[in-house]
Amino acid sequence: MSSMGKPRLSIREILNARSVAIVGASEDPAKWGGRALAIQVRHQVSARVLPVNPRAATLMGMPAYASLRDCPGPVDVAMLLVPRDRTRQALEDCIAAGVGCAVIVTAGFAELGDEGRQTEQDLVALARANGVRLIGPNCIGFLNARRNVIASTAVALAAVDRIAAGGIGMASQSGALMGMMLARGIDTGAGFSSLVSLGNQCDIDINEVFGYLIEDPDTSVICLYIEEVRDPARFRGLLARANAAGKPVLIAKSGRSRAGQRAVMSHTASLAGEWPVFEAVCRAHGVALFENIADLLDCAMIMARGQRMSGPRVAVFSGSGGAGALLVDALEVAGIETATLSQASRAHIAPLLPQANREIPIDFGTIIAQTSPDAVYGDEAGTLIGRVMEDDGVGAGVVMLTSQPAMDVVARAVVRVGAMTRKPLVFVHAAGSTGHAAREVLRDAGYGYLESQNDALRIMGALRDAAGAALCDPSHTPSPDHRTAADTPSGFLNEVQARQLIESYGLPTTQWRHAHDVDGVVRALAHFPGKVAIKAVSPTLVHKSDIGAVRLGIASDEEARQACAAIAAAVRDAGHELDGFLVTAMVRPDAELILGVQRDPAFGPMVMIGAGGVLVELLRDVQMAPAPVTRAQALAMVSRLRCKPLLEGWRGSKPADLDQLAEVIVRLGELAAGDSALRELDVNPLMLADGKVVAADARAFREPGGQ
Amino acid sequence: MSSMGKPRLSIREILNARSVAIVGASEDPAKWGGRALAIQVRHQVSARVLPVNPRAATLMGMPAYASLRDCPGPVDVAMLLVPRDRTRQALEDCIAAGVGCAVIVTAGFAELGDEGRQTEQDLVALARANGVRLIGPNCIGFLNARRNVIASTAVALAAVDRIAAGGIGMASQSGALMGMMLARGIDTGAGFSSLVSLGNQCDIDINEVFGYLIEDPDTSVICLYIEEVRDPARFRGLLARANAAGKPVLIAKSGRSRAGQRAVMSHTASLAGEWPVFEAVCRAHGVALFENIADLLDCAMIMARGQRMSGPRVAVFSGSGGAGALLVDALEVAGIETATLSQASRAHIAPLLPQANREIPIDFGTIIAQTSPDAVYGDEAGTLIGRVMEDDGVGAGVVMLTSQPAMDVVARAVVRVGAMTRKPLVFVHAAGSTGHAAREVLRDAGYGYLESQNDALRIMGALRDAAGAALCDPSHTPSPDHRTAADTPSGFLNEVQARQLIESYGLPTTQWRHAHDVDGVVRALAHFPGKVAIKAVSPTLVHKSDIGAVRLGIASDEEARQACAAIAAAVRDAGHELDGFLVTAMVRPDAELILGVQRDPAFGPMVMIGAGGVLVELLRDVQMAPAPVTRAQALAMVSRLRCKPLLEGWRGSKPADLDQLAEVIVRLGELAAGDSALRELDVNPLMLADGKVVAADARAFREPGGQ
Repeated sequence: MSSMGKPRLSIREILNARSVAIVGASEDPAKWGGRALAIQVRHQVSARVLPVNPRAATLMGMPAYASLRDCPGPVDVAMLLVPRDRTRQALEDCIAAGVGCAVIVTAGFAELGDEGRQTEQDLVALARANGVRLIGPNCIGFLNARRNVIASTAVALAAVDRIAAGGIGMASQSGALMGMMLARGIDTGAGFSSLVSLGNQCDIDINEVFGYLIEDPDTSVICLYIEEVRDPARFRGLLARANAAGKPVLIAKSGRSRAGQRAVMSHTASLAGEWPVFEAVCRAHGVALFENIADLLDCAMIMARGQRMSGPRVAVFSGSGGAGALLVDALEVAGIETATLSQASRAHIAPLLPQANREIPIDFGTIIAQTSPDAVYGDEAGTLIGRVMEDDGVGAGVVMLTSQPAMDVVARAVVRVGAMTRKPLVFVHAAGSTGHAAREVLRDAGYGYLESQNDALRIMGALRDAAGAALCDPSHTPSPDHRTAADTPSGFLNEVQARQLIESYGLPTTQWRHAHDVDGVVRALAHFPGKVAIKAVSPTLVHKSDIGAVRLGIASDEEARQACAAIAAAVRDAGHELDGFLVTAMVRPDAELILGVQRDPAFGPMVMIGAGGVLVELLRDVQMAPAPVTRAQALAMVSRLRCKPLLEGWRGSKPADLDQLAEVIVRLGELAAGDSALRELDVNPLMLADGKVVAADARAFREPGGQ
Repeated sequence: MSSMGKPRLSIREILNARSVAIVGASEDPAKWGGRALAIQVRHQVSARVLPVNPRAATLMGMPAYASLRDCPGPVDVAMLLVPRDRTRQALEDCIAAGVGCAVIVTAGFAELGDEGRQTEQDLVALARANGVRLIGPNCIGFLNARRNVIASTAVALAAVDRIAAGGIGMASQSGALMGMMLARGIDTGAGFSSLVSLGNQCDIDINEVFGYLIEDPDTSVICLYIEEVRDPARFRGLLARANAAGKPVLIAKSGRSRAGQRAVMSHTASLAGEWPVFEAVCRAHGVALFENIADLLDCAMIMARGQRMSGPRVAVFSGSGGAGALLVDALEVAGIETATLSQASRAHIAPLLPQANREIPIDFGTIIAQTSPDAVYGDEAGTLIGRVMEDDGVGAGVVMLTSQPAMDVVARAVVRVGAMTRKPLVFVHAAGSTGHAAREVLRDAGYGYLESQNDALRIMGALRDAAGAALCDPSHTPSPDHRTAADTPSGFLNEVQARQLIESYGLPTTQWRHAHDVDGVVRALAHFPGKVAIKAVSPTLVHKSDIGAVRLGIASDEEARQACAAIAAAVRDAGHELDGFLVTAMVRPDAELILGVQRDPAFGPMVMIGAGGVLVELLRDVQMAPAPVTRAQALAMVSRLRCKPLLEGWRGSKPADLDQLAEVIVRLGELAAGDSALRELDVNPLMLADGKVVAADARAFREPGGQ
């Protein structure tokens, strides 16, 4: 039977496969093919299981088939667990048997270099020509927990009878990290929709599965492990669609560091993109970013419950004063404030705690037993947690238990309150196996828990960032070049041209005049009330100050003539052309910033704002966002600058008008998005003077072939 | 029997008690008195157990006594588990029975306020008058794992038959956090010497136990949980003694934040000291500081093995390319570099890995099976880890496993290599219960493991800081005031007096002359090659610039006369006295720092250095050390400054002479330690100009009653 002309399966059809063949199935669960089959048996999967092994008649009590070609009926999915050199034969069998999708678990292809890459491409060509979809190679397959369809070798699956169904979906370039999601999720009670390991993504890629998870009604939270973003425009579109669908996206992406990039390359033959741009794009779409999969899953469980931080301050509960005090300290070091209770909340919990203890951190160790339970929250622990979580000043809660009696009672209280609050309430289990009963309570309730205080700091940070995110407006796509003058030159723009370009988008600049010769400069002087700067205008000179082509503090005609002569000589000596002089007003700034645009090859124009002077380099004090940016994004960028105190009236200087600064950033975003030829632009410095914002210099580069 | 005149027991005698009475013992393990007794039974403790309960003849198969007075033979230690209002009676029974030490587990004393404090003090007075030592109240007691002596209610103890003996000792103000040490230690295989929970420290305090642990031959690593440092001078002396004894000290201290301080207050009635000073004192004594007890214990296990980081770079091993890549990224974000393998190491591991994978992070997933084992490290995983750890560029290693087959094989390899290397090699177990066999291997070997990647980042940071610590020299105590002139005034010192003071300790200052009147200023001008600054000298004016009492850039006699007149008028208008004028050379600095001395009420004189200008306030860019400081400490302080790049030749400016800067800090330390009257001193700015270091202004305050 040939599959020629057969329509290629969708991700939905693959994840709802009615039959799964295991090519290379074995009786030995220590082998990949044995584990894959044992998982099918143990989970009593809903799809028909077809073990394929030429040397067995039955395997684990099921009839085995010598080849895919011998399998009865349609085969939707075939897992290929054969050695690398037999993969092509197995794929040919898939084609002959009309298999819809082959999951190539086997490794040793593109991730090992050129030879492997060629072999892999040959497989893809063969599969595509015959309508077979491919997942992998170098992956651990997939599972659909809702429908109990599995085509995976994940070690964690072999240890349980069933994966809990829930709203958490995942697409992962790494099989091991999908396995970690499963292993940890099994322990903490996470509920999954579908998880897909993509490996080398030779056919089906992360974007395709990401798109499916957005549409999938079973999925409410989307988790991605990414090494390389393929088709960045499509990826960004998917982020916007996920936002529109109200589904949080949580991403762990490797390749941030150089050594990490190397690991990624050898792992699945990917080249990682540049981190700051990726981070800015994610931020603009409300993505929560994680350094590891455990944190990602813990946060996904909270988000799957619909819990979001309602304010920046956190309530801390513990079973001991010492543990609570340490947690409060650690939160502060991590930049997370501890909440203070309102009078009303204090009154609510007054019967439960001695006078001295009615404040955060709440210490369960001092609880006063009640004779009649609270009608809303039941027992004492529940009431204490519940009433505190109701406080408007509390944005989220952390319950941290060290080894102590009745941990399970507190765990039950957390599950109860957690089902009634819209705020995140996490349980940190710091008692090791001593308090295992509490873990079981939390797992059985599908609630989750953390093992480490350090993890709680990460989770709270991620939740706070997610709650405060200022998103881009995907509907806002400025019409190209609507404000860039048709005669704007391309290539390097001199300061006059760059000033004209930014002014056409409404950015304020210091007063200026372009004079073509010395006499023009002298005439221009009359138009400036105070001292001026005189600069060379040149189509080729980028760093004017470096060669002495800028003169400051010019007050008289005589000084101007001397300055022009000196500038002209300096430009000539440096071998540059001179297109006259720029006369500009001098401003004494209270603070200086830099603004910029960079066109990223993957994600397009990015707007940047940073601290001026030494701070930007010393602190890497730069914020970035994809263009265009909304006013809220611009304000958020400014508020994330480390140098923000300098803008707020440092040592008696006048505070900058942050609204006006945000407006300037928005306009720069319009320019970046609107002028499709613009490759880079620097406004350096952007001066904040006397409460106003004004560009004091600018340069730009526009693509020659642009408009 | 009365104990009048009996010598009070030492900590050693208490921890080696031959008999332990449990006052308030019970048959019900759900009660405190039942758990305490059940622990004695289950652990088959070496001390004789004496259950005391007036309503039972036998308890858990042992004869019970109605009162301490009825117990046969000497009672070394009595645990008091009676209600608060019966504690005094129980103590009176202790006195009558000649008990050596009462462990008051009961809470509700000083930690609840004034009334409880009075009750507690009455107990102490009674005990002291009768030679009875007290531990607690509000504690969970102690255990000596080496001798199997227990007087504790710790929940974790009730779950096991025996606590593993080893080198880790602890003194803890919090019972729950000592319980957490035990619970986690039981899971990870930690070996303990003695652990003591001090609670309210009404008699025996942390310092006393700390001192014991320094002397205790069974203890090799000392762990402290501190809320309040009592007797700071003694505490500092103990830190120095621990150093001299070669025993690492690991501390978690709460009260860093304000909310944390409140929790500490209500917990054991302590007032937490100020954090930055505490941190500086700890740093000067090589103490490793931790935010939580889990990290503290994990690090203690590594140090108890004698492992120390031999260099700043870390090797990463993982079972998956993705997990390794994420870990490398996370290490970089945490400021920890990943190592690169030498050619020799690469050659060593060549048979074990494909060409593309012979680099860090090492991916066990790509290992090539060997036919003959390595003679040194045994199997493939062991050889891979061992050969990489041998690399001189590798200072420590992190093995991170997600859920995968044969995790226990890797765990065994880690235990094997870990026993052969002097470098820290940590195992991060990120597979949940799936890989429990690996956990058992690590626990049974007493090796330990981490549950979270975030924990690994903390541990590596702590180990790196510990390895690079520059310690103070406790033997270096400058003779008091040996260089401070006898006629140095007290109270506020004007700039002339402050300059003379710092110059007497060898700190370089900008050239200066003190002129008593305008004519003196004009005469002084002749001694300065360039422009000068003229400042008011006044015994009362602290902030000269604020009122216009500083004039810069004076070049001529005429300018000097004008400046003096203006300064005199300004000082007069501000209501201050004028003691003439200071003429100083002007220096154009490449960078500015601030130096200072502050006398801390607890820990004495502290030397500070910080970034000048906006940076110190924006970044809190200050480093501090207790005076005196060694040259190595001074260099370490400079190298920790965030603004250090500014000192190293920023944008073409001449690099500062860091050796000279360190020398200036050392001399400031001599001054701070040597002048016992000095309360505070500011050198602001300290200028770095043309490679040289020079103080351009100074002010000081000396205690009127000082010398």
